[in-house]
Amino acid sequence: MTHSLIDELRDALGAAHVLTGTDAAGYLTDQHGRLTGRALAVVRPADTAEVARAVRLCRAHRTPVVPQGGNTGLMGGATPDASGSAVVLSLGRLNRVRAIDTDNDTLTVEAGAVLARVQQAAQDAGRLFPLSLGSEGSCTIGGNLSTNAGGTQVLRYGNARELVLGLEVVTAEGQVWDGLKGLRKDNTGYALRDLYIGSEGTLGIITAATLRLYPPPRAQHTALLAFGCIRDAVAFLSIAREGFGPALTAFELLSDAAVGLIERHVPEHPLPLPAGAPWFALVELSDAEGEDHARARFEDVLGQAFEDGLIADAAIAESLPQSQALWRLRDEALGTAQKREGRNIKHDVSVPISRIPDFLHATAAALQVRFPGVRPIVFGHLGDGNLHYNVAHAEGDTPADVLAVEDGIHAVVHDSAHAHGGSISAEHGIGQTKRDLLPLYKSPVELDLMRRLKQALDPLGLLNPGKVLGFAPLRLHEDQDATPATAP
Amino acid sequence: MTHSLIDELRDALGAAHVLTGTDAAGYLTDQHGRLTGRALAVVRPADTAEVARAVRLCRAHRTPVVPQGGNTGLMGGATPDASGSAVVLSLGRLNRVRAIDTDNDTLTVEAGAVLARVQQAAQDAGRLFPLSLGSEGSCTIGGNLSTNAGGTQVLRYGNARELVLGLEVVTAEGQVWDGLKGLRKDNTGYALRDLYIGSEGTLGIITAATLRLYPPPRAQHTALLAFGCIRDAVAFLSIAREGFGPALTAFELLSDAAVGLIERHVPEHPLPLPAGAPWFALVELSDAEGEDHARARFEDVLGQAFEDGLIADAAIAESLPQSQALWRLRDEALGTAQKREGRNIKHDVSVPISRIPDFLHATAAALQVRFPGVRPIVFGHLGDGNLHYNVAHAEGDTPADVLAVEDGIHAVVHDSAHAHGGSISAEHGIGQTKRDLLPLYKSPVELDLMRRLKQALDPLGLLNPGKVLGFAPLRLHEDQDATPATAP
Repeated sequence: MTHSLIDELRDALGAAHVLTGTDAAGYLTDQHGRLTGRALAVVRPADTAEVARAVRLCRAHRTPVVPQGGNTGLMGGATPDASGSAVVLSLGRLNRVRAIDTDNDTLTVEAGAVLARVQQAAQDAGRLFPLSLGSEGSCTIGGNLSTNAGGTQVLRYGNARELVLGLEVVTAEGQVWDGLKGLRKDNTGYALRDLYIGSEGTLGIITAATLRLYPPPRAQHTALLAFGCIRDAVAFLSIAREGFGPALTAFELLSDAAVGLIERHVPEHPLPLPAGAPWFALVELSDAEGEDHARARFEDVLGQAFEDGLIADAAIAESLPQSQALWRLRDEALGTAQKREGRNIKHDVSVPISRIPDFLHATAAALQVRFPGVRPIVFGHLGDGNLHYNVAHAEGDTPADVLAVEDGIHAVVHDSAHAHGGSISAEHGIGQTKRDLLPLYKSPVELDLMRRLKQALDPLGLLNPGKVLGFAPLRLHEDQDATPATAP
Repeated sequence: MTHSLIDELRDALGAAHVLTGTDAAGYLTDQHGRLTGRALAVVRPADTAEVARAVRLCRAHRTPVVPQGGNTGLMGGATPDASGSAVVLSLGRLNRVRAIDTDNDTLTVEAGAVLARVQQAAQDAGRLFPLSLGSEGSCTIGGNLSTNAGGTQVLRYGNARELVLGLEVVTAEGQVWDGLKGLRKDNTGYALRDLYIGSEGTLGIITAATLRLYPPPRAQHTALLAFGCIRDAVAFLSIAREGFGPALTAFELLSDAAVGLIERHVPEHPLPLPAGAPWFALVELSDAEGEDHARARFEDVLGQAFEDGLIADAAIAESLPQSQALWRLRDEALGTAQKREGRNIKHDVSVPISRIPDFLHATAAALQVRFPGVRPIVFGHLGDGNLHYNVAHAEGDTPADVLAVEDGIHAVVHDSAHAHGGSISAEHGIGQTKRDLLPLYKSPVELDLMRRLKQALDPLGLLNPGKVLGFAPLRLHEDQDATPATAP
């Protein structure tokens, strides 16, 4: 049976695009090398019709399909399980820009296009596609949409979901839903688009999208600010939101411990201001007018906050290279510093912005009670209430010591986020890594609603099984079978 | 049986809140008096728990429930059918503002709160809730969300869906889903929130929402512009989007015929510039800085377009009263003028902005071929590609003449919108009025997906039946019953 499926896939897609054995290996391990699965085969269809055909063939054989984009996800959402019963479906060959419409400010692109190429295509047309995140050089837009990716410009432009006007999706039955409309308003039925986005390939396979474009800003200004306490940082965020309005495009928080790691491990990226403050923020203004206006406005709002004692210290980038250096500090240098320090326990939580100070105090205190000496390395997108609350080993310990209590640390951080009205996954999704945590933080009502949607759109449970929701057999809802059961 | 349901509802909600007979009459006819239904009773629960209890009681009796907010919808979505078998559930008593969090820029409010009250509550807290539409003095936020309302500020702030962070919903089983999170990022499962929004009460009953607030603009400038052709108006929209960036908050189009109706019927609202141009636009800039900056910027961008010959004429409001007068022209005067001219055939279409000129030319031509002399009265939200393409009787004819060919006119306008990649309902929804048009413009794949979602979340079909989707018995999907059918 499985042999014949592979033959049928070869007939349908061409033998060169049905990989098995060592050819398939690169698709079976997640980017960080922490999860490795097995698969019957990896298929690389050329276009939407071939995706649909591959899904129909797999379905006829009751074979699960694991969609995969750039394989950069952090939650194992694109990695098959260990059973070897699934087919991995890589979208990589669907990588065409199908259309750019500058009067409508839209771009239609296939799912396998790398995010940086999508950004470049927009830029070549004199527009901005604002989704921006660390892996943009290798992640694909399809993966971004299936996980509703966030990144550094959510504050102004929203998550991936907010950047999409239309979708093309292959359903679990291998049919094509053509929802590639370039409309800003369309109230003709249920929000299929929004439902598929963020469903991590468990409800359908996104094959193309019509994306929103924006005018690029005419000038940008960046500064690294130091704050005497987290409440000052939150207060200044409010002031910046009011003073800059939508021109505020980034507000990235860094704790003293995060900055300290950079100083210790990445001396080639010196801090532009003295360490010592407990909190720092990288703030960016994107101006629709021009250089002079941007500078005047930036200095006006920052200057007032400085005078009011809200900002303890500031390094304002005076040039594009200086601005890029600040961003490198936040991105590469922080990543490198964490790697050199050794593995830590990572989190991706969000809480309402108003509760950030309480969340930080409560979480740090709870960690110290249960795991004395561990060091929170906190950074993230304060403007969205989204913190990467990573926890490193105590001074004198080794990374292995903190890894040994990983589940306990997760529990403390996630419980605290939940207790503060927050989420245990702000932008990374659920995949397989956080799947079994969901029942701890979601109500039975919500999980039941999710299961019903899964059953409705993927009744055989063949799309990315075991991701987001557990393998628990989907129970038929009491009402869904209207005919009375035969008495036993 | 039905008598006992009414008794049970009286026991649960109090007799004063279960209306029958003439007390119920005001809830059974839509705002325009075009549709009248019948109902077993109208219930007015006091809070979410009572909504849930009422739904459970109705469900136990297999009695349909028709949720109703301010009863201002244009598509009959809140009006029961003629059978008299349903209970109308009015959310009007759920009208509390539950919380305002200015640091998080969120407001949590119950579904029955009138939109103008929500706007006022935000304003009292020094914030802006930007949803704004004609019926804001009587429509409710629950109705706005269940129909994903649009309005005049979508260009900047998005549709109702984009203004919601969290929801509370009573399910078809009378359970409460508490999804009232105030988070800007939360990727922990399927987008239930987005699915309930815009589903017109057919998947669940929205009882409360956590809404996004914004800093109010410090200054606003408004102008009425005249254009020599529609391509100039679209070109200037592009320039305004780039020049003003997110400060562009309105771009409302008016055709010469729309302006002519105002001149003819509402002389108390004089035009601030000579009629004669084929197209006009009301343009608004909302500035985060202040009066001087707003004025300079407005005049800069408009002045350049004027010099370039793109704008034929302009009346810039020099004061708040002048600005309000321009908005009254667009809102009340245009509404009054249409009423005085007599009933016309209304549409609410959208097309990609780049296709607006072709759509307008093609639609006008097609109408003249089939219905010579009829007059398109076109206005709407050009910035969103959303036009209210109304069609009035030919000069010399009467409104009755155009009403006699209503279906044919709908067909021409909707076919044209569809052929131009557009939607037959941009912001008004489907309700019962457009329900039977959906199969003409949606693919069988999409309709099937919608039916599956309906079946998953409302398996007995008791929530607002006959709205959005037809009464066609929900067919069990081939895969949903895994056991083979008994041979006949």
